[in-house]
Amino acid sequence: MIYLDNAATTSMYKECLSIYEEYACINYFNPSALYAQSIKPNQVVNNARKTIAANIGCLYNEIYFTASGSEGDNLALFSTIKQKKGKVLISDTEHAAIYNSAMHLKDMGYEVICIPVDAYGRVIIEEYKKLLSKDVVLVSCIHVCNETGAINPISDISKLAKAANPSCIIHSDGVQAFGKIPVNVKALGVDLYTMSSHKIHGPKGVGAIYIKSTVHPRTFIYGGGQESNIRSATENVPGIASFEKACQITFNNLTKSHGISKKIQKYIVDFINKNISDCIINTNLDQSSPYIISFSLKNVRGEGIVHSLESKDIVIGTGSACSAKKGLKRIPVALNLDPSYFDGMLRISFDPTINQTDLDYALNELTKVIDKERELLQK
Amino acid sequence: MIYLDNAATTSMYKECLSIYEEYACINYFNPSALYAQSIKPNQVVNNARKTIAANIGCLYNEIYFTASGSEGDNLALFSTIKQKKGKVLISDTEHAAIYNSAMHLKDMGYEVICIPVDAYGRVIIEEYKKLLSKDVVLVSCIHVCNETGAINPISDISKLAKAANPSCIIHSDGVQAFGKIPVNVKALGVDLYTMSSHKIHGPKGVGAIYIKSTVHPRTFIYGGGQESNIRSATENVPGIASFEKACQITFNNLTKSHGISKKIQKYIVDFINKNISDCIINTNLDQSSPYIISFSLKNVRGEGIVHSLESKDIVIGTGSACSAKKGLKRIPVALNLDPSYFDGMLRISFDPTINQTDLDYALNELTKVIDKERELLQK
Repeated sequence: MIYLDNAATTSMYKECLSIYEEYACINYFNPSALYAQSIKPNQVVNNARKTIAANIGCLYNEIYFTASGSEGDNLALFSTIKQKKGKVLISDTEHAAIYNSAMHLKDMGYEVICIPVDAYGRVIIEEYKKLLSKDVVLVSCIHVCNETGAINPISDISKLAKAANPSCIIHSDGVQAFGKIPVNVKALGVDLYTMSSHKIHGPKGVGAIYIKSTVHPRTFIYGGGQESNIRSATENVPGIASFEKACQITFNNLTKSHGISKKIQKYIVDFINKNISDCIINTNLDQSSPYIISFSLKNVRGEGIVHSLESKDIVIGTGSACSAKKGLKRIPVALNLDPSYFDGMLRISFDPTINQTDLDYALNELTKVIDKERELLQK
Repeated sequence: MIYLDNAATTSMYKECLSIYEEYACINYFNPSALYAQSIKPNQVVNNARKTIAANIGCLYNEIYFTASGSEGDNLALFSTIKQKKGKVLISDTEHAAIYNSAMHLKDMGYEVICIPVDAYGRVIIEEYKKLLSKDVVLVSCIHVCNETGAINPISDISKLAKAANPSCIIHSDGVQAFGKIPVNVKALGVDLYTMSSHKIHGPKGVGAIYIKSTVHPRTFIYGGGQESNIRSATENVPGIASFEKACQITFNNLTKSHGISKKIQKYIVDFINKNISDCIINTNLDQSSPYIISFSLKNVRGEGIVHSLESKDIVIGTGSACSAKKGLKRIPVALNLDPSYFDGMLRISFDPTINQTDLDYALNELTKVIDKERELLQK
């Protein structure tokens, strides 16, 4: 099988599985218990905190474990704003976890405004500046757009927001950036930064969030006081330990993988430009994560292409899996695509270990399938 | 090692691990994706729903997966009450996830009252009746008390609450009951029922909640709309699938394990009564889960006993791991223990597979350690 939907989820590394087994079946003790046997599970959780912190440039006690990227995003939006009202700015191409949370903030009385993005899904800074004012209480901007791969200028976004209102909370959903491009939360200037494990070959059901030590969020899940009382529940020790392992493998290879992916990304875009007509590339090679290529086909249903390829054991996505099933048009509208391209959005998100033969096979099959679909449409 | 803290957490069944591997490393696809490869992960999640539903007597679409028992408890308390104010009743021996959530409801303006319990941690129905009125908006009562093992009369509690206010929401935290004693949510009359995986040898970081089809909770985590839009996040397919496996093993053996445990529980209580002086048994054999024995030692620190036993590779708890580290006195106060017994609470929670030799060894060592501690105190 040729799997080209790594932005939706990834297979867990085999190395994570043995770690998982150790903390699920052997050192399975509850880290909150008082006996000596719980020291190791406790340490492994804190070591994982340290590993993540070291890779994104923060203190280890600024890392909190969650059960998902969505949970981190919800925590950022619902547990941090101190004001009862004010303006909330989010980019126009946020993941559903931010978009739908923000819509709930709107129901709660906040003024929620989407920052316009360019044709590649990147925030337009000039438009953003116009929206800033001293009553902006929270800005949430996705670091790498999960749909197009666009890298947003988070550092500029943070600086401008803090200049408008120093107490404004800055959050970035880093799910598609973490482990893919270099991340330093201090340089980004964010107060909160969401991460997920299953996008980097770690286990599903595990995430983390960076919360700057000066931010004091309200409790998101009440209970035994785990995760510094922000998010209670018996720690998912095997999940967290295997997430750490996935981080170690990913970050050790980050520079190398990034370089390889940059070349693969260019190769794919060149191939599409050369071989597929009536197709708009939504990914800007100069300002994107190298792991994602989004493109839109004119008058072709992306879903049909996905199904034609699945039988050839080639797996590609139509965009975010979270919104795929709903057939939502929020993203193509934000990208200002012509409606004739709305249904034709496809996303290739590869793993850098893909070999040239598989890649060429997949791209050729993709071309054939599109041609066939278009032939059928013309009849 | 002799592990007697199974109410805190359990080792994951080996059978769960192979299932985990399958859905983490092979059928790892995102269930929300459109391609055929995601059908199997999707089905496995729904099959797990069916397995749980069949074992607690509800419809499969009344089961929602969460990341923990604590999350389920929080969802029950924060996403269901429709009224802006009113009375919330919880038992006096709830788990911290309910107790602290209820305290937050109090901060939000609800009148929160703890229902008195007897010396065994069981709700006193006559006292409960006095608290009922038509402005009771939510009742949450733990099914099996995690501290003492007491089984609460949930069916009576539900009936009485619904008689006082038909629109009252009834929740029960079933974390220590699920897989341990027979559970039928329809017979219990509850609207919501919380379950957890890691207490029955399933993976950590996975839970479930029964939500009666007539209850329409608000969204707890916003995002891609998973779990019928109540709790979004990419489904933890390997976790959910291995939770299902743990359920299958547990429920297949429920009756047999229950019978064995009943005998072991009586054996332990008889042993303690015979061999350990100045000790109050907090567990009523006639109205408790057979898996838990709570007892309190006069003028002895439970924590000291735990540490003396840990070096002999015998692991017992001081009560809920979630509150252990904080040295909270909420439970002994609720049980109306004399203050000289407050620090001496210990909890034995065994697995029915324990053998007689190990059990006798542990009980004899426990006795020796207590005797030694008391000798030291007298000096």
